Amino acid sequence: MATPSSPVNVVTGRHELLYGGDYNPDQWTPDVWREDVALMQQAGVNLVTVGVFSWASIEPEPGRFTWGWLDEVLDLLHEAGVGVDLATPSASAPPWLARLHPETSSVDAAGVRTSVGSRNHFCPSAPAYRDAVVAVARALAERYGDHPAVELWHVGNEFGQECFCDLCAGRFRAWLADRYGDLDGLNEAWGTTFWSQRYADWAEVVPPRVAPYVHNPAQLLDFRRFTSDQLLDLYRIQAAELRRAGGTPVTTNFMGFFPGVDQHSWAGDLDVVSDDHYGDPEHPTPARSALTHDLLRGVGRGRPWLLLEQATSAVSWRAHNVPKTPVQMLQDSLRAVAHGADGVCYFQWRASASGSEQFHSAMLPHAGPDTRLHRAVREQGAVLKRLGAVAGTRVPARVALVFDWPSLWASELPARPSEHLRATAQLEAYHRPFWEDGIPVDVVPPDADLDGYDLVVVPSLQLVGDAAAANVARVPERGGVLLVGPFSAVQDPTTRVRTGAFPAPWTGVLGVAGEEWRPLPPDGVAVRSDAWGEFTAHVWSESVAARDADVLAAYDGAGLAGEPAILRRTVGEGEAWYVSTVPPSDMLGAVVRACARAAGVVAPVLDLPRGVEAAVRGDVVFLLNADDVARDVTVPGGAEDLLGAPVAAGRVELAPGGVAAVRVSPSGR
Amino acid sequence: MATPSSPVNVVTGRHELLYGGDYNPDQWTPDVWREDVALMQQAGVNLVTVGVFSWASIEPEPGRFTWGWLDEVLDLLHEAGVGVDLATPSASAPPWLARLHPETSSVDAAGVRTSVGSRNHFCPSAPAYRDAVVAVARALAERYGDHPAVELWHVGNEFGQECFCDLCAGRFRAWLADRYGDLDGLNEAWGTTFWSQRYADWAEVVPPRVAPYVHNPAQLLDFRRFTSDQLLDLYRIQAAELRRAGGTPVTTNFMGFFPGVDQHSWAGDLDVVSDDHYGDPEHPTPARSALTHDLLRGVGRGRPWLLLEQATSAVSWRAHNVPKTPVQMLQDSLRAVAHGADGVCYFQWRASASGSEQFHSAMLPHAGPDTRLHRAVREQGAVLKRLGAVAGTRVPARVALVFDWPSLWASELPARPSEHLRATAQLEAYHRPFWEDGIPVDVVPPDADLDGYDLVVVPSLQLVGDAAAANVARVPERGGVLLVGPFSAVQDPTTRVRTGAFPAPWTGVLGVAGEEWRPLPPDGVAVRSDAWGEFTAHVWSESVAARDADVLAAYDGAGLAGEPAILRRTVGEGEAWYVSTVPPSDMLGAVVRACARAAGVVAPVLDLPRGVEAAVRGDVVFLLNADDVARDVTVPGGAEDLLGAPVAAGRVELAPGGVAAVRVSPSGR
Amino acid sequence: MATPSSPVNVVTGRHELLYGGDYNPDQWTPDVWREDVALMQQAGVNLVTVGVFSWASIEPEPGRFTWGWLDEVLDLLHEAGVGVDLATPSASAPPWLARLHPETSSVDAAGVRTSVGSRNHFCPSAPAYRDAVVAVARALAERYGDHPAVELWHVGNEFGQECFCDLCAGRFRAWLADRYGDLDGLNEAWGTTFWSQRYADWAEVVPPRVAPYVHNPAQLLDFRRFTSDQLLDLYRIQAAELRRAGGTPVTTNFMGFFPGVDQHSWAGDLDVVSDDHYGDPEHPTPARSALTHDLLRGVGRGRPWLLLEQATSAVSWRAHNVPKTPVQMLQDSLRAVAHGADGVCYFQWRASASGSEQFHSAMLPHAGPDTRLHRAVREQGAVLKRLGAVAGTRVPARVALVFDWPSLWASELPARPSEHLRATAQLEAYHRPFWEDGIPVDVVPPDADLDGYDLVVVPSLQLVGDAAAANVARVPERGGVLLVGPFSAVQDPTTRVRTGAFPAPWTGVLGVAGEEWRPLPPDGVAVRSDAWGEFTAHVWSESVAARDADVLAAYDGAGLAGEPAILRRTVGEGEAWYVSTVPPSDMLGAVVRACARAAGVVAPVLDLPRGVEAAVRGDVVFLLNADDVARDVTVPGGAEDLLGAPVAAGRVELAPGGVAAVRVSPSGR
Repeated sequence: MATPSSPVNVVTGRHELLYGGDYNPDQWTPDVWREDVALMQQAGVNLVTVGVFSWASIEPEPGRFTWGWLDEVLDLLHEAGVGVDLATPSASAPPWLARLHPETSSVDAAGVRTSVGSRNHFCPSAPAYRDAVVAVARALAERYGDHPAVELWHVGNEFGQECFCDLCAGRFRAWLADRYGDLDGLNEAWGTTFWSQRYADWAEVVPPRVAPYVHNPAQLLDFRRFTSDQLLDLYRIQAAELRRAGGTPVTTNFMGFFPGVDQHSWAGDLDVVSDDHYGDPEHPTPARSALTHDLLRGVGRGRPWLLLEQATSAVSWRAHNVPKTPVQMLQDSLRAVAHGADGVCYFQWRASASGSEQFHSAMLPHAGPDTRLHRAVREQGAVLKRLGAVAGTRVPARVALVFDWPSLWASELPARPSEHLRATAQLEAYHRPFWEDGIPVDVVPPDADLDGYDLVVVPSLQLVGDAAAANVARVPERGGVLLVGPFSAVQDPTTRVRTGAFPAPWTGVLGVAGEEWRPLPPDGVAVRSDAWGEFTAHVWSESVAARDADVLAAYDGAGLAGEPAILRRTVGEGEAWYVSTVPPSDMLGAVVRACARAAGVVAPVLDLPRGVEAAVRGDVVFLLNADDVARDVTVPGGAEDLLGAPVAAGRVELAPGGVAAVRVSPSGR
Repeated sequence: MATPSSPVNVVTGRHELLYGGDYNPDQWTPDVWREDVALMQQAGVNLVTVGVFSWASIEPEPGRFTWGWLDEVLDLLHEAGVGVDLATPSASAPPWLARLHPETSSVDAAGVRTSVGSRNHFCPSAPAYRDAVVAVARALAERYGDHPAVELWHVGNEFGQECFCDLCAGRFRAWLADRYGDLDGLNEAWGTTFWSQRYADWAEVVPPRVAPYVHNPAQLLDFRRFTSDQLLDLYRIQAAELRRAGGTPVTTNFMGFFPGVDQHSWAGDLDVVSDDHYGDPEHPTPARSALTHDLLRGVGRGRPWLLLEQATSAVSWRAHNVPKTPVQMLQDSLRAVAHGADGVCYFQWRASASGSEQFHSAMLPHAGPDTRLHRAVREQGAVLKRLGAVAGTRVPARVALVFDWPSLWASELPARPSEHLRATAQLEAYHRPFWEDGIPVDVVPPDADLDGYDLVVVPSLQLVGDAAAANVARVPERGGVLLVGPFSAVQDPTTRVRTGAFPAPWTGVLGVAGEEWRPLPPDGVAVRSDAWGEFTAHVWSESVAARDADVLAAYDGAGLAGEPAILRRTVGEGEAWYVSTVPPSDMLGAVVRACARAAGVVAPVLDLPRGVEAAVRGDVVFLLNADDVARDVTVPGGAEDLLGAPVAAGRVELAPGGVAAVRVSPSGR
Repeated sequence: MATPSSPVNVVTGRHELLYGGDYNPDQWTPDVWREDVALMQQAGVNLVTVGVFSWASIEPEPGRFTWGWLDEVLDLLHEAGVGVDLATPSASAPPWLARLHPETSSVDAAGVRTSVGSRNHFCPSAPAYRDAVVAVARALAERYGDHPAVELWHVGNEFGQECFCDLCAGRFRAWLADRYGDLDGLNEAWGTTFWSQRYADWAEVVPPRVAPYVHNPAQLLDFRRFTSDQLLDLYRIQAAELRRAGGTPVTTNFMGFFPGVDQHSWAGDLDVVSDDHYGDPEHPTPARSALTHDLLRGVGRGRPWLLLEQATSAVSWRAHNVPKTPVQMLQDSLRAVAHGADGVCYFQWRASASGSEQFHSAMLPHAGPDTRLHRAVREQGAVLKRLGAVAGTRVPARVALVFDWPSLWASELPARPSEHLRATAQLEAYHRPFWEDGIPVDVVPPDADLDGYDLVVVPSLQLVGDAAAANVARVPERGGVLLVGPFSAVQDPTTRVRTGAFPAPWTGVLGVAGEEWRPLPPDGVAVRSDAWGEFTAHVWSESVAARDADVLAAYDGAGLAGEPAILRRTVGEGEAWYVSTVPPSDMLGAVVRACARAAGVVAPVLDLPRGVEAAVRGDVVFLLNADDVARDVTVPGGAEDLLGAPVAAGRVELAPGGVAAVRVSPSGR
């Protein structure tokens, strides 16, 4: 199942699973560098990200580059066998740029130009900023394109900034002209007849700056799209410089479901998809982490991805920052590997003594190497080494969850039926039963090739284009199972409501006709079902008629007595399900599992004990015991544990907090 | 009881009760117009408001008018017998105005000039805006002044915007100079000796822009007054253009207790008072709706008013927008009629597909006419037709509740004894017993003619002028009953505290002398009364001595043991009551009902069942059963139900959610 | 114990304890002044603060002074024997200054220049403002330097404003250049390598204005320091003018723990330290008041201080302003006296009728002198007269609590381990047991002379310099007891984390080595101790090893099972304690009392009853009974009650809400 074609395989082919963190040597003296490299070797570190915030160290004055320190650091790392993910420093320009070119600093929606002294204060449109970014990327590429330490290029950091300045207004107009042709097209797409917003001249069109009342939703959505494209362009002009220096793969670090950029539209420009992921140890959400990993793998179309940032223990940007236990630290990393990551790295190697993240945990804490935390870091390095064979393998998913950013953005626009119906919460709810059962799931956009999936789930897709809607509607026709959640396919890509019975493009395939979205009062509504008994649904209901579908559950209250809540239409070999409300977790689990059964999708582990998480990658079943008691688990066909525990007849014992990676023999499945 | 002198009677004389909604044909194609008009006819619609946000459709470029679409729409409506409330579009200027005249966009208190892309972004002082507003109003009047469809003119929309720009500063100075004569007058009125705020030059006087700490309260209050007057002037320059075209009555849509404008000062300029009213179906507050309707009727001095905007179901601007039931929709409309409305209209006729209110309910939903919601709209049209005789009749109130905007504004100034003592909450509390008993109440300003009222209630009137205070004080002297709530008559119109024992202008008539306002700790205070037993009051108490009054209830705690809480002074035939605290709802009800008894005010219905609301208009008693069980109600003298239910000996049966309109025979009362 | 060397003793030598309030005669007419002065005499008032907000009354136009009213008022007061604390009016410049010099108005972090119409709208850097401030101070000094009424000078009001304008940026740069020498020094101190913030030119350095993300913590801290120094300079240029007029002492009114200025760095410039203190009567916190008084006394290095502002009853700037009872009013004043105040004054004498504080209580309420409140004011005047002998005496503290503003500022920086671990809350927690026992405590900075204290407590000192850290560490070595709370000595004065085991400078003296700060999940963690049983700690824990210390309590959970929670190291005669968590109040009380016992510190009262507060000043033990039942209290050696109650064998009976001032005979102690 290895995939030698993926560019990152060049790196993992050398190191197997990647392990390391951000490394900021310019904050330390050369003697510390030597201690660092020695400790990295002892910990099994094989990849560090260097230079993300080093612009001022590289180019302390405009055009004057100081390479000496970086030359020395890269040489030291290379000698120690530690690969380098070398970054362009575009996320934080030195203060001299703002001094010489004030227009390079971003402007907020109220017209306030942001100040230096933090980070991310750039306007992506400012020519002087763009020129400076290209120049420093070119200089890096020219100097280090052939350096043997450099195994990966890294562009910027956590893209997602917004700027509302006049330069951005100009580029926004050009982007809109390109999208809609002329002002008539724009006026039509934005529905500017509403509230007398019709534009008579391009000069009138601006970003959604501070206004007396709510903004045009189409303008808001297009500004999101524009911002994502604008940042992608910023990525591209840097990546182009790096690629000129040779074939070293290029990446940037995304942030899971963060709404700043449309990762699907970016993916084609990345050689490997990377993510930053920071769960809150005070409120662990392993299911959400698994979903996010499935998303990132989907962004990369199933290829291995890299977890470039996470925390070894506490972060410092929450109000109250609870630390991780060593068990959590290891399981968080192995969960990422199990869901397709070929590397697990941290922010950062050595804890900073100064600056805004001085209280953020690191691989090497302020108190030094003789600490519980650093010992756990070393142990993790050893574990990852034993899992080397996993590198490059794929996750064998037969279930697809549909998600995309434009629809997420639409679901966050103001003035909608309910802020309590949240797209990502719906996604989590429909993903959770699969996570509980250890069933692999891909998270894909609605225009993905869905033919390989037996079950396609659309938890929430408020906005969808015609072609993508048709793509989804084909699933039952070719014998698959389609499961659609409420308030989906409501708007076209301009945010225009699709009038008529809803969900307009899918009334046929689902056999339903909706007429009113009905957010529920706090008590919710009773729902009765022959299959699943009676339950109370909250937040949302809909007035929907069954035109050509079986009613599996019906409302009993909230002005909807007797009307259908959950429906199923049989389409030859296929099935199309519609859930018009938000059932409680166990009930939704029953619905989702019924769909899985109908699609012939089965779990990889028998009677998975409560508290144990399972995930399949390649021919390995990962098992993570989050509980503080030992657990026996049986993996059909389980042959050996890569981490060394005995396996008999597929059965392995997990210690409290223990983990296993059970390889399944081909005959045994 | 019909009042033929009221201008709106010209309209209702033609149509009887008015029914319809905002209509925005420029969002749709001509074929849709024809479908709309046909459906309006079927639904009994006889009035639509057109053009509120059509400026860009009427005048797409400066000075170029496009009348064709509007000509056609008005003709279509007229042919169908649907009257038109034709609006000036001043609430939302086309973006070209901001492009050509940036100063026409409003500026907030922090100096940020607002952007196009929403609505309400106008500076009411900018000459270019005012010129453009007058020009488009004149053009509308010239073209459609004689059009037979146009039965009502409508100016702007929901006035209440603020602007802090330099142009407004200039007009603010002129307004102040007019009010106070010179700077000495201003300094005296504003008490500028406090905190060294004395103005030495008019150029120093500005709107209450962002400051390091709390603003001068007199400045804040006068800026409210100025803004209201400024917007009134904006209304007037438009109305003047419309009136030149003939005698068609002119209105604008107020917003209940919204503090943006002083409706009492506006009322003389409106031929008919109109309101927008949006209760929250998730938390129904029929009593508050009834109070608001009583307010609007009072603004129009008892004449019939129009409910120009409400929602058929859910709105979209709350965080969570629960729909209305058809029962709620009908009862909300009939409540307005019962409290004096001659028309009940909606925002809007056809749900918008685009723009910021695309998820707001309408008379014709996205899903089309074959829906429960639209069927209910048609049924309501039929009900209103049966109630035609009610049009033009008056509400026979013998009770007055005193309220005005300057006092409301004073009660919302910063740095007051307690934010938890709220003027509108007090008004609701004192209004509620009357609402519960079906007793008609007028809400009037303190300088109204109070002679016609047997009972005058002043729930909260923090600020009052001398003449108005004397007007109120005369009530007991002429044999009426006066009931005054706490923290009243505290300030003169400049916000200056009236020193000495409080309430200073009324210590004589009430026979009390107050010395300290005492907000209560969370547990409240015990109050003991021979008449009403013991209860706990919250939020507020006062240290008050009885100089010439009976103590009906006394405090027992909070440092006030034994001091009077509720007092009554007998003045010949009249009585004067003072309540110095906030009793719980039932206790306040007992106090209010004791006053009503003393004033000889009786309820129109015997033993009104819980859940049934009653209201009297003309010779009709409206009954609304909000409960889901049937209820019998007896109306003394009840002769027939305009809606057709049998009435025997005044007794009528209300179905669950049912309504009746029982006409009382003159002999029966 | 009297201290004749203190400048304020000149004033108290004349009047004994000072009593009065802010007096704003320019808000009233001359006939009112005469009534005021007569009422002051009757109430025992002997000090009023005049002119704090009178700039516009003194100088209504630039350079034109109007002294007549002030001449007359000072003469009237002097004739009546009322001393005057005459203020420079710099807190609120007249609007003409902003008109003529817009740059004198402050600018916020978003670049918004503040408006007139409030107060405090000054830029401390603007030359025109500074010139005007100096001119008016000079004029006051020249005119009234010899006036016999003027017994105290008062500069400005409640310093603590911030300004982010370009003028302040310029002065900030100069201040930084002075502190760090050159840009290399600045870059090193601020750790600007982090996030590429390295400054290449002084012009790049600005105040922490609005930025896209969190600011550099060292920049934030230095801007706090700079602002404090900047305001101190503003104080100094005014004080210099006043001092030229003779030896009248100079003060300004601080605000307790308010973070606006570093009072320790100001203290040397004040002849007497003064405070404004406004507890919330709705939630009385006498312990916090006592702590604040101990702080102010410490700022003045033990000398008597003045409570210049408090409220007789309710304030008006909270959301809900509950009044004080007369008992609270008196006890609040006596608490201040007991903790070292030589004067207790109020804001203000006569309640304002206009302006932003018109609803703030005063010594003479709107309702006039024949009121409960004013009678209580007079009674308090009589009580203070009987306590005259207390004036000038000292508080005999053997316990020091360490606190300073730079560390407080550090503890409020963004991006720290937990916002729930608050420096002032820690200070209150460690102070409370002493307050409960009536044991005197000085609050002092870490570089104070600690030799006089038997017990030194460091509840929270996140940031500390090397010399101060060494100063604290010497306590056990010289035989004292040192008690240190968690997260102390974490940073050096630049905010740089002190790396290595923590608390880095004190690992030796405490015998501990910490490796991770561990904010706790909501359930907290169990702690077990032989001495104090088992308890649950919240918010905070630490992973700490005992290198050379006894473990008095150990964690049982939260990943720290068996690790030490509370440790003690014996150092010859001395002891060093470390508490690494936040125990519940009673447990922390046991720890603190154990330290007190070890230090030989004993309480002045035997078996102090619950609800009675005790405090020692000179040879007097003050007793305040907050309860509504009578209480007997025994003061060893108690000889007489200055307030007249019988004392037998040290035993005195306190009425409900009663107070006593028991003088202890030297032999009896």
